[in-house]
Amino acid sequence: MALDHGDPGDAPSTPPPLVDVEDVRRPTPAEEARTVAASTNIATLASLTADGDPWASYVTYGLLGGSPVLCVSRMAEHGRNLHGDRRASVSIVAPETASDPLAISRVTLAGRVDAPIGSELDAARAAHMDAVPAAKYYIDYSDFSLWVLRVERARWVGGYGRMDSATADDYEAATPDPVTPGAANAISHLNEDHADSLLAMAQNLGGYPDATVATCTTADRYGLDLSVTTPRGNATTRVGYASPIDRIDDLRAATVELARRARS
Amino acid sequence: MALDHGDPGDAPSTPPPLVDVEDVRRPTPAEEARTVAASTNIATLASLTADGDPWASYVTYGLLGGSPVLCVSRMAEHGRNLHGDRRASVSIVAPETASDPLAISRVTLAGRVDAPIGSELDAARAAHMDAVPAAKYYIDYSDFSLWVLRVERARWVGGYGRMDSATADDYEAATPDPVTPGAANAISHLNEDHADSLLAMAQNLGGYPDATVATCTTADRYGLDLSVTTPRGNATTRVGYASPIDRIDDLRAATVELARRARS
Repeated sequence: MALDHGDPGDAPSTPPPLVDVEDVRRPTPAEEARTVAASTNIATLASLTADGDPWASYVTYGLLGGSPVLCVSRMAEHGRNLHGDRRASVSIVAPETASDPLAISRVTLAGRVDAPIGSELDAARAAHMDAVPAAKYYIDYSDFSLWVLRVERARWVGGYGRMDSATADDYEAATPDPVTPGAANAISHLNEDHADSLLAMAQNLGGYPDATVATCTTADRYGLDLSVTTPRGNATTRVGYASPIDRIDDLRAATVELARRARS
Repeated sequence: MALDHGDPGDAPSTPPPLVDVEDVRRPTPAEEARTVAASTNIATLASLTADGDPWASYVTYGLLGGSPVLCVSRMAEHGRNLHGDRRASVSIVAPETASDPLAISRVTLAGRVDAPIGSELDAARAAHMDAVPAAKYYIDYSDFSLWVLRVERARWVGGYGRMDSATADDYEAATPDPVTPGAANAISHLNEDHADSLLAMAQNLGGYPDATVATCTTADRYGLDLSVTTPRGNATTRVGYASPIDRIDDLRAATVELARRARS
């Protein structure tokens, strides 16, 4: 049995909104990519062997702007590979949990590595040490080199059907989301103590007046993603704050305003 | 400051055993690699773009013997890459937790992917579905392909200073450890309720008669790894069962025998 990708097969279908709602601003692909890159200190490097074969290997990294800073040994295969050919990419997976492994956020950053010099070397070293404190045990060994990945292309995948590419300029100009990484407690609080407000948001702002339950799944600098239960099936929607926020501390006021607007 | 890799720098030094002990059998690199490969269903693929650039991307997999079975879409870059060039490798990281990210076990498997046919296609499909149940939603879409990675080379890294390569034949002939993945509760029990036995093992079988504390860090089919505190500093040692075990259920009897031998 071969199906076209467009065919939902036995995947669940999603009921559309019953009311037209304005598009709610959401993070750009470049912002999503920067957020994933800032979410951890481990990645997988793809480098090239002397034969030009691809070689996948586990690495740690820090960030200089959006550029991963690697610290690898020439005694290791990936270190020799980078010395032989500067082309490289890294895959970074956000430390999310999901029962379906393809539902989590990840990014591929591709380009070429450079050995930083001068003040950039100092900054690269500090960035790596800041992200990987244990690097103090080996960063000064002569067989270890610092490499800065000059990102030429970023590919973000946020889960099923959520994916896009970002140019090098957009990736570098973007910033990691200031809200998402620290929002878990706030989201739990919303779901446990303010289910009625979330339901009002889904019904009156999110286009699902027939919603019976709404839970918040993600909070970012622009708004909340909601998972919605309706008699027609389950859907997702999104509600936007009155204006973007720059700090996790502003999330409470932004959601209070959303709840007030949903009930007005 | 550049140091030779042999120079311990400010890394902690390790006191040697005070008593010569026989070498204790430990898992081979091929066995270690098979154990890591069997420990999860997510990996990072390194493939080649049309330009021959390395491309790192997150994938799910099942196992056919020791061969990863991927299911990827031609609508995704890594899917197009594999159709264009069969050379590939995957990096698999064991789902361990450690404060130092470079202390955890990982493996790189490198070779070429094949599209399985006939009975191998059926087996590959079953292996992928068994490991990744959510694949039922997309595995039959016409843009998805199953690929079997023919492993030509396996590189295992078990943490600092624990690493080795395995040939394709050794990797395929080895089996995942039957004890390690399910040993967490037994290890906690040993450490919480049998600290005296572990200490006796370290003192009388492990070469550290001056040990003051010993904790078990890993159990595998051949024996236990112990972390040892001595007045001279901290060390690791290993004690072996009377004979290898094939089942987690045999771990209790094997450690009881070890404890008895340590006190005799």
